[in-house]
Amino acid sequence: MEFTARQIAAVLNGIVEGNPDAIISNLSKIEEGMPGTMSFLANPAYTNYIYTTKSSIIVVNDDFVALQPVSGTLIRVKDAYASFAQLLEIFNKNKPAKTGVSPLSFISETARIGENAYIGEFVVIGENVVIGNNAKLSPHVFIGDNTQIGDNPTFLSGVKIYHDTIIGNNCTFHSGVVIGSDGFGFAPQSENEYKKIIQVGNVIIEDNVEIGANTTIDRASLGSTRICKGVKLDNLIQIGHAVEIGENTVIAAQTGIAGSTKIGKNCLIGGQVGIIGHLVIGDNVKIGAQSGIEHSIKDGEAYLGTPAQEIGKARRLYVHWRNLDQVIKKIYHFENLLKKQEG
Amino acid sequence: MEFTARQIAAVLNGIVEGNPDAIISNLSKIEEGMPGTMSFLANPAYTNYIYTTKSSIIVVNDDFVALQPVSGTLIRVKDAYASFAQLLEIFNKNKPAKTGVSPLSFISETARIGENAYIGEFVVIGENVVIGNNAKLSPHVFIGDNTQIGDNPTFLSGVKIYHDTIIGNNCTFHSGVVIGSDGFGFAPQSENEYKKIIQVGNVIIEDNVEIGANTTIDRASLGSTRICKGVKLDNLIQIGHAVEIGENTVIAAQTGIAGSTKIGKNCLIGGQVGIIGHLVIGDNVKIGAQSGIEHSIKDGEAYLGTPAQEIGKARRLYVHWRNLDQVIKKIYHFENLLKKQEG
Amino acid sequence: MEFTARQIAAVLNGIVEGNPDAIISNLSKIEEGMPGTMSFLANPAYTNYIYTTKSSIIVVNDDFVALQPVSGTLIRVKDAYASFAQLLEIFNKNKPAKTGVSPLSFISETARIGENAYIGEFVVIGENVVIGNNAKLSPHVFIGDNTQIGDNPTFLSGVKIYHDTIIGNNCTFHSGVVIGSDGFGFAPQSENEYKKIIQVGNVIIEDNVEIGANTTIDRASLGSTRICKGVKLDNLIQIGHAVEIGENTVIAAQTGIAGSTKIGKNCLIGGQVGIIGHLVIGDNVKIGAQSGIEHSIKDGEAYLGTPAQEIGKARRLYVHWRNLDQVIKKIYHFENLLKKQEG
Repeated sequence: MEFTARQIAAVLNGIVEGNPDAIISNLSKIEEGMPGTMSFLANPAYTNYIYTTKSSIIVVNDDFVALQPVSGTLIRVKDAYASFAQLLEIFNKNKPAKTGVSPLSFISETARIGENAYIGEFVVIGENVVIGNNAKLSPHVFIGDNTQIGDNPTFLSGVKIYHDTIIGNNCTFHSGVVIGSDGFGFAPQSENEYKKIIQVGNVIIEDNVEIGANTTIDRASLGSTRICKGVKLDNLIQIGHAVEIGENTVIAAQTGIAGSTKIGKNCLIGGQVGIIGHLVIGDNVKIGAQSGIEHSIKDGEAYLGTPAQEIGKARRLYVHWRNLDQVIKKIYHFENLLKKQEG
Repeated sequence: MEFTARQIAAVLNGIVEGNPDAIISNLSKIEEGMPGTMSFLANPAYTNYIYTTKSSIIVVNDDFVALQPVSGTLIRVKDAYASFAQLLEIFNKNKPAKTGVSPLSFISETARIGENAYIGEFVVIGENVVIGNNAKLSPHVFIGDNTQIGDNPTFLSGVKIYHDTIIGNNCTFHSGVVIGSDGFGFAPQSENEYKKIIQVGNVIIEDNVEIGANTTIDRASLGSTRICKGVKLDNLIQIGHAVEIGENTVIAAQTGIAGSTKIGKNCLIGGQVGIIGHLVIGDNVKIGAQSGIEHSIKDGEAYLGTPAQEIGKARRLYVHWRNLDQVIKKIYHFENLLKKQEG
Repeated sequence: MEFTARQIAAVLNGIVEGNPDAIISNLSKIEEGMPGTMSFLANPAYTNYIYTTKSSIIVVNDDFVALQPVSGTLIRVKDAYASFAQLLEIFNKNKPAKTGVSPLSFISETARIGENAYIGEFVVIGENVVIGNNAKLSPHVFIGDNTQIGDNPTFLSGVKIYHDTIIGNNCTFHSGVVIGSDGFGFAPQSENEYKKIIQVGNVIIEDNVEIGANTTIDRASLGSTRICKGVKLDNLIQIGHAVEIGENTVIAAQTGIAGSTKIGKNCLIGGQVGIIGHLVIGDNVKIGAQSGIEHSIKDGEAYLGTPAQEIGKARRLYVHWRNLDQVIKKIYHFENLLKKQEG
């Protein structure tokens, strides 16, 4: 399928600068642009590529100022990154979707599944499971007994959901996601042995949550582990038992959150962060990658480092760290001076 | 089912303080307590909730001293956390267990499986596998050839166990656990290429081991990777080839242990810890979360930080770190003073 | 099967020192050596074991100098570690390989699979998939639509490969590997909500790549995530969208690489390292375990720590860190001296 700059600008509510009849049939990265493709300039770090790209059309933010000639046609929009997302979605919707229930799946007789489902080969759906409309369950998905799932779930191959989980609408879980595994609770017994604390709670996941590959979310011992609406979790994340994550919070890969910690709304948490248990992290909190969080954090604060400091302080400490060689030299110099003075 | 405080106290060997006829039918968290439920006060951080909870019964340690009135009935026990574990287990045993071998599983003709097994849909059991009594294998479990497993294994959906693994009694592995994958061994060849070291060893897991979701344990190149009895591993942990973990050691999520390291008994290792290869960690060692361990550690020591220090020292260093701003200011102040003195 | 020292020396191009008719039937670790087995001394840390091992034959580097008597027969070779790899491979090739296509697998009618394949139970192969000769696909493997795979793939149980992936020859992926999951891209919308960026790119994996258990590699939003030939990835690694990893680079467990970062050839990257997005890491770079990389790195450099420093500097900083207690004491001492001087 081909589109002209004029057509695309109409969809994106943008303004064409250059040839409105420029034609593209595919998308490309700006640094790998070819004639007949369209690219986006959303990240300022890639600005220089706009002067060399061979893309026929480039979508830019409306405040973009060209410092050199640009060979392609520009489409100016309010937010190039959001427009990019919008167009990818349009391209994607043209793909034929899989439908139908594979005769090689196993669906309990007591399960109820809504209309228009795709259930792949070797999927297992347990007793009393309820799933809404438009489900897409790829091969090897497992849904445990009594689990309830809303409309439009997309579970990729190998997702494992334990019993009694509750999942809202429009959730996407990638391959290897595990929801509802037992929380890590063991009571010390005599002679250094541990007794498992049976985990009788569950996991609740609200609407519009996306969870990355091989991420694990433990069930609560009592009550629920809760992932609120709009949360986005990257790959290989660990969410401990009875954790709560507030609306629209975004967490990058390999971060771990220990049991019973509550995280607020609209937080941005970097990759490989560790947060200990039983903390309260406020709304709109930002935590830098690899930080170690051992105290609760108030609304709107930003933290970095291990042990984590307020981000401005953390950056000053990092400057000191880089300069510590010089500081130590100074101290030896003082010591010598003082010895001479005393001597 | 309903229970009175008197009945529960009898089971827990506890003492009722308040109404012995108080009735509960469910458990709840102390901070979310409702009438008709029973809660536990095991973590001192939650003590304040005992004065506001609506739970009808609260189980407390026998040394608990109420500083304000408590509305519910108390049951005093020796160890509230252990009692909690015990009661959850009793509640849990009332659940009906799955039984029978699914006709949709695949079991090699040469495998031998004990009595009273549950084998779920699409399970694969390889050649010459031996499994004891009371096995619970959820859908999509894979057991490789020649693997031996004791009594009472509970393997959740999607556990993958490679060939020649040996597993004791009473082991629970959560979804996505991988046991016996090849160790990471490659010999450098000419021209920067690597030749894989074939891993002909195996993994041995002793009795009473629990392993969390998506944790991976590599097989040894020669000999065995060994997880001793009573070990508890959380989610997303990496255990390298030929590692040994001693009895009743507990390791939190996302920790990684590199090849050939030996860890003693009764250790407590926090989350996101990294331990390099070929070390010896003694018995009763404690390692704080996110630590980086690059030296062996003696029995009974506690370490923290990267690079890890003895914990008392590590905490002093962290205090210095937080105060480094002031220290640097002092140094500039000295420098100025000394310049004036010299000038 | 039994082999004499003479036979083994002939295969390894080595020189026998001791009894050329010494016989072995198995391999063992040098520290666990038994009569009738052969061991290797490749790691100098294990040198002392050569004087106590009961192994009948020990393979050593040709420059090994015995400081005490050795009871076994030595075989001197150019590189004991490489010889070890070579012999393991010979031992391994004697094992019977699985063959044939399980009637319990599901293979799309439009897929094309080469000669001599083993396709295990409950494998799913999607539409238009092309796979070369000698494929070994263990149970529960999933291959998405339009994926192309070269000769000699070995995919262990539960590997999940999304649609449109391209994989070269001789690749081995361990259980739980996920290839082609969506990159973590969300555009902020009004009111703190995020809109998913559809990921229309793919993953390209070249020849001779080995990937460890439960490692995840995301597809690119546009273009490709690329793993070049000879790369070795350990377990539980996260590779973000549009990352490129150069030839023969080796990465240890639990490391994460954020989106669009390019890593050069022949790099050695330790475990639990975090590398932020959009960086360029040169060829022959070494990065120590647990480092946090937030700047690009030039060819041949070595980095360590968080934030990472050139390795020589990082080690000096770690020395200062360990001595910080003394340094702070000195500063208080200066302060007192100066106060006295001023006073």
